[in-house]
Amino acid sequence: MKIKRGQKRMEELEQELASQYDLHFDNEQLLQEALTQANYLNEHPEVEGNDYQRLEFLGDAVMQQSTAVYLFKRFPDWDEGRLTELRIAMVQTRSFAALSRELHLDRYIRLGRGEELSGARQRDSLLEDIWEAFIGALYLDQGQAVVMRFLEQILFAKIDEGFFEQFVDYKSKLQEYLQKDGPVAIKYQKLSEKPLANNDQIFEVEVMVNQQVLATGQGKSTKAAEKDAARNAYQQLTTSAEKK
Amino acid sequence: MKIKRGQKRMEELEQELASQYDLHFDNEQLLQEALTQANYLNEHPEVEGNDYQRLEFLGDAVMQQSTAVYLFKRFPDWDEGRLTELRIAMVQTRSFAALSRELHLDRYIRLGRGEELSGARQRDSLLEDIWEAFIGALYLDQGQAVVMRFLEQILFAKIDEGFFEQFVDYKSKLQEYLQKDGPVAIKYQKLSEKPLANNDQIFEVEVMVNQQVLATGQGKSTKAAEKDAARNAYQQLTTSAEKK
Repeated sequence: MKIKRGQKRMEELEQELASQYDLHFDNEQLLQEALTQANYLNEHPEVEGNDYQRLEFLGDAVMQQSTAVYLFKRFPDWDEGRLTELRIAMVQTRSFAALSRELHLDRYIRLGRGEELSGARQRDSLLEDIWEAFIGALYLDQGQAVVMRFLEQILFAKIDEGFFEQFVDYKSKLQEYLQKDGPVAIKYQKLSEKPLANNDQIFEVEVMVNQQVLATGQGKSTKAAEKDAARNAYQQLTTSAEKK
Repeated sequence: MKIKRGQKRMEELEQELASQYDLHFDNEQLLQEALTQANYLNEHPEVEGNDYQRLEFLGDAVMQQSTAVYLFKRFPDWDEGRLTELRIAMVQTRSFAALSRELHLDRYIRLGRGEELSGARQRDSLLEDIWEAFIGALYLDQGQAVVMRFLEQILFAKIDEGFFEQFVDYKSKLQEYLQKDGPVAIKYQKLSEKPLANNDQIFEVEVMVNQQVLATGQGKSTKAAEKDAARNAYQQLTTSAEKK
């Protein structure tokens, strides 16, 4: 019974991948392998095949190269520091976990019982591994060009939506930038706090260095407003530095 | 004059790449960029083009994927731990510096004067960057398939020669393996020391755990012999564990 249910679910996933993303697997064993955790196989000795770990090894490298090639060509004027920064924000645990959830891969993982009980199915670290294994399987089955087309649709398009901003620590970046020639006094100060209609509040803060205001920021918490101010300041400073 | 000399040397490199490795660049500006350090451009404002750093960003990722894909296909029975270990030994500073020297890339780098005086031309860290930039340029100019063919010839072939063994710390690996269930006593003991014809000596040592001999090793120093013994022990232990 268990295996039959597993097979039915795989078909659902294949239908979803085909209708939503125009993705097809010639060898569906590879897709299954990408979604199989080691302890599931230990607990089901009758089930053949491998767990996802070799595919994860492959997919990790495929994600790195695909992202680097895309960014290199897309941003011909960026230096390697800026390229590296965005690549790191894109190719990391939380980003990959979000992609696994977006494709509903989490629903199709064959997990060991202990992992299921401990809530592993929703753990970012597992969903990151599963994403890499999925990309490894897609690469083997369909090749680099299909991987690139798919990543353009699901990952690279998010650059323009500002999706990866959330993974960049702008307060640290601003501090690093301002203190490159020695320590300076950086201060965040609350300017206002206004209630919104839906019971939320909106905070406004300014960021100052040596008593001089660099930028302001807004957010639904002081922390979010400070991050917004740091991003505004950092982007103003680094954009004007480029023009010199 | 400077620039003319630069151009002549580039032609020599292109001839060498063609005759030795059957490598050709359609856009030789890319090859030049891969061999140009930032301060050289600062000191020669009349020279157009970029330094190698963007190509290094690209080539780093291309090396990672090319190596991962090769190892994944070449060793279908290896688990991801063993694949990762060999990939790390292959894709690292000393390995890349050795490749830059093998292609004589070090002779063609356009370096800033300060870097030249401080001996940067022979520094492993620079030669690693240059290797990655060279691979980035080759990927852009000739594509993935040419990169793979070239790497099979110059890098992957070295797996069978045991070239990457020197980059693996087998004494640490053996210790880690033996102590996975708690501390054990590991001891290296010299067995013999024989003079060779050419004034060298050959040492033989054995490695023991809890008074039991695991393996012996030989080398031209005690340290080399211990490393050899550790590798023999580690490989015996991990090979027999796989068969279980």
